[in-house]
Amino acid sequence: MSSKLGTLFRVTTFGESHGKGVGAVVDGCPPGLSIGEKDIQPQLDRRRPGQSRLATDRNEADQVTILSGVENGRALGSPIAMCVANKDQRPGDYVDMRSIPRPSHADYTYQAKYGIRTMSGGGRSSARETIGRVAAGAIAEKFLFEDYGIEIVAWVTSVGTIVAADVDETRISRKQVDDTAVRCPAKKVAEQMIRAITDAKEANDSLGGIVSCVCRNVPAGLGEPVFDKLEARLAHAMLSIPATKGFEIGSGFAGSRMTGSTHNDPFVKKEDGLGTASNYSGGVQGGISNGEPILFRVAFKPPATIGKAQKTVDFAGNEVTLEAKGRHDPCVVPRAVPIVETMAALVIADLALQQRSRGITE
Amino acid sequence: MSSKLGTLFRVTTFGESHGKGVGAVVDGCPPGLSIGEKDIQPQLDRRRPGQSRLATDRNEADQVTILSGVENGRALGSPIAMCVANKDQRPGDYVDMRSIPRPSHADYTYQAKYGIRTMSGGGRSSARETIGRVAAGAIAEKFLFEDYGIEIVAWVTSVGTIVAADVDETRISRKQVDDTAVRCPAKKVAEQMIRAITDAKEANDSLGGIVSCVCRNVPAGLGEPVFDKLEARLAHAMLSIPATKGFEIGSGFAGSRMTGSTHNDPFVKKEDGLGTASNYSGGVQGGISNGEPILFRVAFKPPATIGKAQKTVDFAGNEVTLEAKGRHDPCVVPRAVPIVETMAALVIADLALQQRSRGITE
Amino acid sequence: MSSKLGTLFRVTTFGESHGKGVGAVVDGCPPGLSIGEKDIQPQLDRRRPGQSRLATDRNEADQVTILSGVENGRALGSPIAMCVANKDQRPGDYVDMRSIPRPSHADYTYQAKYGIRTMSGGGRSSARETIGRVAAGAIAEKFLFEDYGIEIVAWVTSVGTIVAADVDETRISRKQVDDTAVRCPAKKVAEQMIRAITDAKEANDSLGGIVSCVCRNVPAGLGEPVFDKLEARLAHAMLSIPATKGFEIGSGFAGSRMTGSTHNDPFVKKEDGLGTASNYSGGVQGGISNGEPILFRVAFKPPATIGKAQKTVDFAGNEVTLEAKGRHDPCVVPRAVPIVETMAALVIADLALQQRSRGITE
Amino acid sequence: MSSKLGTLFRVTTFGESHGKGVGAVVDGCPPGLSIGEKDIQPQLDRRRPGQSRLATDRNEADQVTILSGVENGRALGSPIAMCVANKDQRPGDYVDMRSIPRPSHADYTYQAKYGIRTMSGGGRSSARETIGRVAAGAIAEKFLFEDYGIEIVAWVTSVGTIVAADVDETRISRKQVDDTAVRCPAKKVAEQMIRAITDAKEANDSLGGIVSCVCRNVPAGLGEPVFDKLEARLAHAMLSIPATKGFEIGSGFAGSRMTGSTHNDPFVKKEDGLGTASNYSGGVQGGISNGEPILFRVAFKPPATIGKAQKTVDFAGNEVTLEAKGRHDPCVVPRAVPIVETMAALVIADLALQQRSRGITE
Repeated sequence: MSSKLGTLFRVTTFGESHGKGVGAVVDGCPPGLSIGEKDIQPQLDRRRPGQSRLATDRNEADQVTILSGVENGRALGSPIAMCVANKDQRPGDYVDMRSIPRPSHADYTYQAKYGIRTMSGGGRSSARETIGRVAAGAIAEKFLFEDYGIEIVAWVTSVGTIVAADVDETRISRKQVDDTAVRCPAKKVAEQMIRAITDAKEANDSLGGIVSCVCRNVPAGLGEPVFDKLEARLAHAMLSIPATKGFEIGSGFAGSRMTGSTHNDPFVKKEDGLGTASNYSGGVQGGISNGEPILFRVAFKPPATIGKAQKTVDFAGNEVTLEAKGRHDPCVVPRAVPIVETMAALVIADLALQQRSRGITE
Repeated sequence: MSSKLGTLFRVTTFGESHGKGVGAVVDGCPPGLSIGEKDIQPQLDRRRPGQSRLATDRNEADQVTILSGVENGRALGSPIAMCVANKDQRPGDYVDMRSIPRPSHADYTYQAKYGIRTMSGGGRSSARETIGRVAAGAIAEKFLFEDYGIEIVAWVTSVGTIVAADVDETRISRKQVDDTAVRCPAKKVAEQMIRAITDAKEANDSLGGIVSCVCRNVPAGLGEPVFDKLEARLAHAMLSIPATKGFEIGSGFAGSRMTGSTHNDPFVKKEDGLGTASNYSGGVQGGISNGEPILFRVAFKPPATIGKAQKTVDFAGNEVTLEAKGRHDPCVVPRAVPIVETMAALVIADLALQQRSRGITE
Repeated sequence: MSSKLGTLFRVTTFGESHGKGVGAVVDGCPPGLSIGEKDIQPQLDRRRPGQSRLATDRNEADQVTILSGVENGRALGSPIAMCVANKDQRPGDYVDMRSIPRPSHADYTYQAKYGIRTMSGGGRSSARETIGRVAAGAIAEKFLFEDYGIEIVAWVTSVGTIVAADVDETRISRKQVDDTAVRCPAKKVAEQMIRAITDAKEANDSLGGIVSCVCRNVPAGLGEPVFDKLEARLAHAMLSIPATKGFEIGSGFAGSRMTGSTHNDPFVKKEDGLGTASNYSGGVQGGISNGEPILFRVAFKPPATIGKAQKTVDFAGNEVTLEAKGRHDPCVVPRAVPIVETMAALVIADLALQQRSRGITE
Repeated sequence: MSSKLGTLFRVTTFGESHGKGVGAVVDGCPPGLSIGEKDIQPQLDRRRPGQSRLATDRNEADQVTILSGVENGRALGSPIAMCVANKDQRPGDYVDMRSIPRPSHADYTYQAKYGIRTMSGGGRSSARETIGRVAAGAIAEKFLFEDYGIEIVAWVTSVGTIVAADVDETRISRKQVDDTAVRCPAKKVAEQMIRAITDAKEANDSLGGIVSCVCRNVPAGLGEPVFDKLEARLAHAMLSIPATKGFEIGSGFAGSRMTGSTHNDPFVKKEDGLGTASNYSGGVQGGISNGEPILFRVAFKPPATIGKAQKTVDFAGNEVTLEAKGRHDPCVVPRAVPIVETMAALVIADLALQQRSRGITE
């Protein structure tokens, strides 16, 4: 179990779905940063279940408390510990699934790895684990905005086979994203997505999808080749989110089908120095940000917990038919949006501090 | 610059394209491992340029020397330092490109990040940097094979728009992969790929492609949630390889278009316990290996250095037309095959040692 | 601020003297370990203030709550978060010292480092910070005892110039140590120490002292040369405790005055293999435990916060006379005893897991 | 085996006494630093054996070669790999000691830890391992001097029972230190020390000693509480040097015998802000440098390898008499001087970069 992330902006998260609480400790937050619970709660609210009929019925306020590291609204430079209590637990929902490892869930692998697992629910593999991340990410976002003007916005690009093609990543705002319950800013496509998710829920089935993300105003120079390239750290962070299956930056997999003469981003003179005319690179060259918007996409699989009957075997190898109970999302991508933003913020904050240590004038 | 990777199986690489040498130090190799230069050289030979007409003309023997950590063919448990001398340097090739940041290359971002860059060539952003990785990876592979029987095989799945669909990942071997110059085991498709690369070379252009990889016999239990999940560590490692733009595991991006009832991998009884009937998960559930083959794909962009004329600007912002000289591959994926295997081996070796520390009987 | 310790048994602590709470997250505790609040509370009770008239009057129950990572009395392998609420705060005590950096305290350096500091008290430099350590250390101790039979016992060897010479480190127990309020097992000397501390308190002054520690049943093979030698990690851990000025292992500084022929520990045959006839090495050779008891000593300075008038200057450089208020210990060594044990346990647990990953049969 | 040190200024060392070479990779050196072999060689020359009749007869030039990371005398920001060839090997000297673990040496513990050890000599536990450290330290020193004016000077304070009391640490220079073969600047005492070492050598015995060190011009603000306090990191680094048994900073163990009213360092107004009138703190308060000289001492045991006959047992438990052959120093402290300086430089450079990342104006 490794629940720590980062070299200078260091995060440790904790908490299972059904213990007393979940949370995070941020060690290395720049001192003096103006920060408080009011800066953290909004992203937790965007992440929490029960926001709309598209999400699980589990409804918790997820109110964050800062335990340390902040005084009079300013970060002291010491660890900022944050906690969110677990309240709405219904372990009974899971009891009869105890002897059956849910297909494509973490029951089997947690048992193999730890030789023990929680009596009910997903334990540490639950989506509830991401609360600590989001709380930490909100602090990273505040720092990045205050010190660099960095804006990070994610949105739903696809749900199942329904794709939103035309989103202007240079302008899109969180407000626009939140305009639809599915967090897709293309409103007509959003309606189709909502219908598809509603249909899947009624069919006791689930759907996958893709989240896109843009990070604007990231200064040139962030990323630590050769192993901690910006895209490597982003890929690491994104693939640590539950239910993710893929990551691509800039041209991504489509770029593998292009020629160099088309794919290369020519340099052009811009106001504050050089920029590029196109952005197939996705804001990163040689593992280092180049000042252009950072653009990436994350693929999410359909949630493994479905009500629909599944033929599988129990731990003893006996054939069984499983109809999962418990609350779960028919599609995770709307709620994944703030989590993707969070992970991007954590990575960029850490790399910004590392670059700052170098003393190069940006 | 972060040139270290791993928590217990730790690798530090060093070396530019045009200095005295490149190499790696492996700190944490299990003592007693039978290892020697003869175990390392083959993968370096598969990586080196000049193997076929598909690769750069730069031709170096890339002979590895072990400086420490091994005695009488056995690892001592102390750091294994390895060095490969740089011989075939032609800095003159690059001199007139000095004032022009090559589009989609690392010239501009290295200058922004470090305030200095090598006088010629790519320096640390050169593909030559990967020699140290491959030398280290060969040690990891030996350990994984000896202790677990793990086999790692990568191959070229696509070059540009040419795709090899039918490859049996449960059986494919490196010998089969190396049967064609392009390292695609589907021979007819391979011929088309070779033709496409030759055409691109003649057109002074370049092509992207996709490398697939399978890791067989990985025991259940590897991966460290929540941040060092197996797929997160693999994504990190793969996106640290030069020219990569994407990573997907199991169903990947295609999985985002599926329903849960189709995507879930039902458990079935197998000889040595439970397995899964399908493998959309790609051998990983909840961030932990489940004993099934680990399957992933890596997207590579077309190389940025092309001979074809490109309109761009120099560092001062003046418009120029650039025709890059210097030696370079028209398509990197054939030589990327051993590098992808290497990075997978480094990740899995590190996670295997971490799991071993837990004392859970596998 | 770096509040993390350890590679595999990883601890992150948090909390100031005057915030909502203090605590720790233990990431990497071996799964299945039998652990609960009842295992942690005793060491916190030994650490807490108000135990006797020798300590500060600040009296807090310091009751620990486990927030995560444990279910039904067993560690799940996930992060164990622990919290102790802050209750007895009297910030008013410190208000008028705000403009004066207390001599030999952390006020001046925290301001220089972070550009900000807590309004009152020591903030993160307060002894209260050590609560998180002790909670984490209790888990490490449980693991070490269950898996290896390791016993760690510290005691007060000196207070000021009063020294307890004859303590049999092969047998001493915590019970014996706790027999006297000053935690010195040599009862007559203990009485003198108590008198000296009482005198110092009455004189509004403070006293330093030395804590000795023995770790028994540590298996041979722990310690990671060349930089993470066992003694290096112990020295690191001990010098991170507030108010420490020195560390020595085995013969220590006295060993520097000896000859090799006297200092060398000859090997002898023992029941379970080789041992040594003497133990000037202090249980460590070449940075690795040799199976003999690990013996070390830690020097503590007299507490900086004293009621006695001190001539100094304020932040503006004006000469002032300072008579510190607030509660504070006249001598920290009795309460430092469980903290020294804690830090030893954290180091040894981490090194034990690292050695276990190597798969060498002990 | 952990041969890496540092978070931002990261060092990995490699090499045994009897392999092809020893060296280090410095990852994270600030780019643009003026650095070359000429800056590194002098400290290696001060470290190397054969400098005087006080040291081992092993005589090697220990010429360093920079393999990477530097171009035209400037650090590129990429890893700086350095290698020193092993030349003067005489494995035959050790062959007949193969079955006998040398008392207080690392033979027994390396075998226990790794299940394997080098056929001859100390392998990784040899003093030759420190070459990599010193090469890396020379780079750290250059950085610290260029960017902060930091000067680090160590000297021999005692050999056996002979102590040099009066050394003015505010002025002492390396040139003064090197004036005597024993590196004690108090010339008359130095003569006694030299005689004592010569006598010990003739008696086939060895002597311990103490090295003192001062670091001047260290800015206030370095050190990362609570676990990476400056003194904790120094203690770690010093106790990782072979043959060390103790570390103390400022008042050290003597401070434990003082009262707070005497020990506290009153603040006074100085030219560039506040300073302290006395320096019992040793330049560190609350784990953070306060701008005053950093003062510490390191205790070295007498070398374990002595020619004098020792009664011990072999690995099988049979009683034997051992008269060690091979070359070895009768007293290590003169050669330890540059190693102590090195380790201090590595620690301070790493902490300086960490503080720089915080963006606090010093």
